Amino acid sequence: MQAEIICVGTELLLGQIVNTNAAYLAERLARLGIDLYHLSTVGDNLPRLTALLRQAWQRVDLVLISGGLGPTLDDLTREAVALLAGEELVEDPGARRMIEEYFHRRGLPMPPANLRQALRPRSAVCLMNPYGTAPGLWLEKDGKMLAALPGVPIEMKYLMEEEVLPRLKRVRAQTGDPGPVLVSRVLKAAGIGESALVEKIRDLLAGQTNPTIAPLAKRGEVWLRLSAKAPSEEAAFALIRPVEETIRSRLRGYIFGTDREQLEEVVGRILTARGLTLGTAESCTGGLLSHRITGVPGASSYFQAGIVAYDNRIKEKVLGVEKALLQEYGAVSPQVARAMAEGMRRFYGVDLALSTTGIAGPGGATARKPVGLVYLALAYPGGTVTREERFCWDRTENKIAAAQAGLVLLWQHLEGGLSCAEQGSC
Amino acid sequence: MQAEIICVGTELLLGQIVNTNAAYLAERLARLGIDLYHLSTVGDNLPRLTALLRQAWQRVDLVLISGGLGPTLDDLTREAVALLAGEELVEDPGARRMIEEYFHRRGLPMPPANLRQALRPRSAVCLMNPYGTAPGLWLEKDGKMLAALPGVPIEMKYLMEEEVLPRLKRVRAQTGDPGPVLVSRVLKAAGIGESALVEKIRDLLAGQTNPTIAPLAKRGEVWLRLSAKAPSEEAAFALIRPVEETIRSRLRGYIFGTDREQLEEVVGRILTARGLTLGTAESCTGGLLSHRITGVPGASSYFQAGIVAYDNRIKEKVLGVEKALLQEYGAVSPQVARAMAEGMRRFYGVDLALSTTGIAGPGGATARKPVGLVYLALAYPGGTVTREERFCWDRTENKIAAAQAGLVLLWQHLEGGLSCAEQGSC
Repeated sequence: MQAEIICVGTELLLGQIVNTNAAYLAERLARLGIDLYHLSTVGDNLPRLTALLRQAWQRVDLVLISGGLGPTLDDLTREAVALLAGEELVEDPGARRMIEEYFHRRGLPMPPANLRQALRPRSAVCLMNPYGTAPGLWLEKDGKMLAALPGVPIEMKYLMEEEVLPRLKRVRAQTGDPGPVLVSRVLKAAGIGESALVEKIRDLLAGQTNPTIAPLAKRGEVWLRLSAKAPSEEAAFALIRPVEETIRSRLRGYIFGTDREQLEEVVGRILTARGLTLGTAESCTGGLLSHRITGVPGASSYFQAGIVAYDNRIKEKVLGVEKALLQEYGAVSPQVARAMAEGMRRFYGVDLALSTTGIAGPGGATARKPVGLVYLALAYPGGTVTREERFCWDRTENKIAAAQAGLVLLWQHLEGGLSCAEQGSC
Repeated sequence: MQAEIICVGTELLLGQIVNTNAAYLAERLARLGIDLYHLSTVGDNLPRLTALLRQAWQRVDLVLISGGLGPTLDDLTREAVALLAGEELVEDPGARRMIEEYFHRRGLPMPPANLRQALRPRSAVCLMNPYGTAPGLWLEKDGKMLAALPGVPIEMKYLMEEEVLPRLKRVRAQTGDPGPVLVSRVLKAAGIGESALVEKIRDLLAGQTNPTIAPLAKRGEVWLRLSAKAPSEEAAFALIRPVEETIRSRLRGYIFGTDREQLEEVVGRILTARGLTLGTAESCTGGLLSHRITGVPGASSYFQAGIVAYDNRIKEKVLGVEKALLQEYGAVSPQVARAMAEGMRRFYGVDLALSTTGIAGPGGATARKPVGLVYLALAYPGGTVTREERFCWDRTENKIAAAQAGLVLLWQHLEGGLSCAEQGSC
């Protein structure tokens, strides 16, 4: 099966937003082993959108469209699909109810403009969207398929997962021969840089063709993508398994998860399994650490409290950091990081307390304390460990890197992966 | 002048990376007033790349390519451009020296594969790249122009800024008529939905062609992009100004900023100007609110403390929320939101305190309190205002929406935009 993706929106052609939908849709097709040879972006212009659509409809089996389903007059995907199909637009009663409900639930009157969103080409199906007022469209005609999805990422993803992918799988099952399948598995490592990681598996990287191994450096993590092709998913995963085992044994203590797993989820699972509670005492990360931790469903069962102690007065009052310590070493010091973490543990009765203090920038640096200098501490029942990190980015990236370093410290502690020297004062 | 962008790389068609180059290049063209109607992505495949290139070369004046200039055999942009131009590939002595130097500086031998990167179609020019081993290509032929740039963002951007844009400006100056310039200005609104906003300016949306007005719904915000075409930037902005004035007067109390300004920056500027301090008391947003606030450089001058009171015990202990209140109304209630904000103000001596409490999901809902129900409160010197919101997304999006609603509440208060009824208990 061959597919083509068309992203619609003048804002994309003006460079006002980065097109993340394209990568998401492409990845989903790749996982199903559907070939994608063309991916195009076009503005809110009916003749150009229609021409592109006709070209795609002619050369592939499946056309995916994202964008152009909003309520305004420059949202033209419905019209273009109707022109392609040679059908008139009719109102879909179910879609109309969905849109009316959307406004009703919010206690708002439905603006008349939104009625346009209930229109569909006569033989198309509306895909119901619980996150917004734009239903998707699904069209099967002349042995070809077309799905039109909203441009808003959460709405697009929901409809892709819940409506489009099940239909594609059904069609492929019906047509008998599914062709070779490409599957990927991502191993995620933290606490090690890309070059150091690559050194440990250089021979594997060079020698492997099925699966291939592709390293990808992410913020504070290194991902290894293992991709294998085989007649079935099971056969492809069977090719991946022994290579994965070898990599895992070479990278013991670094690989924290696979595929979509995030570090905070892995940490949360360990805390839940061991019945441990957690608190945070943040300065330079400003709440990002607790935001990541509380992003995990069920985090309330282990995460109890976070203090963002930006002001030194708050460090004293809420975390019991002594004024003398702040004066002698300064707020950005291992001593204060330790006092913050220990204060969080002592005052709020959590099992583990993680703290950050540093200079996010652009201001606040001194001769001896540059922008990007961060101290972390983890207080646990047996003691406290501190760590120094030096980042060299802007405020946003320094905050992200410091929060990541905090989670890495916590994960390594939970995994027992810290040597006694690294544990510092343990 | 019309342009087309072609991004080359199978990794883009597999969804392994997000294409940020496209947005960057598109934005640069838009600033010069060069029209872009098509933006395509194609894999490392010579027939398909060449076909796309021919189509683009035929219909526009300028073709920009990004990617496919690496040293490996699947990097085919050089070959495709040579086929398009009907010219053979020759080695460029300057490019060869550049590549040899690159390895020499690093004390490495040059792999023979890299010599491919010194090739160019006979009439093309190599664009020297200080950041890597891939020179860009510049071709002028038959009154048309083509630039091929590496896919690595830092290399692509350098060559675009230093080599391609100066050439484009020169060509436009030579042809006498520099052509019209397109400028855009984005007005950002919050506290109002897209449809309701559009209702207020429907006549302007329909009647305006220069500038055009395009609404774009973002998370918790609506952006209006005003784009004008004129012989000069000044003339284009002069066309935008009166329309912007009209929109601003229609949308008083909703437009918080322009272009790249973020709500937390605008809020920070007002707090700084008035010498006010701020604290947060978060439950369902889990630290995201303080993370956004502390993302602004200089936030430490007004932001003093944030408490993430996930556990009820912490709400009592650190914010002084009475146990009776928690028992009678539950943690997710306007009463507790109010008590959290007032506790933050009272205990920590900040001028303004913002609180959130709600059910982010997926768990925690009850018959009367669904996932997505959020209460916000803002305590200020004259009283406290509370607000109820109902979101209907997943945990991540509900947190984002709640934090945004908190900032909107704060901004509206600072702008004096809350009516007495909305102020609730004021």
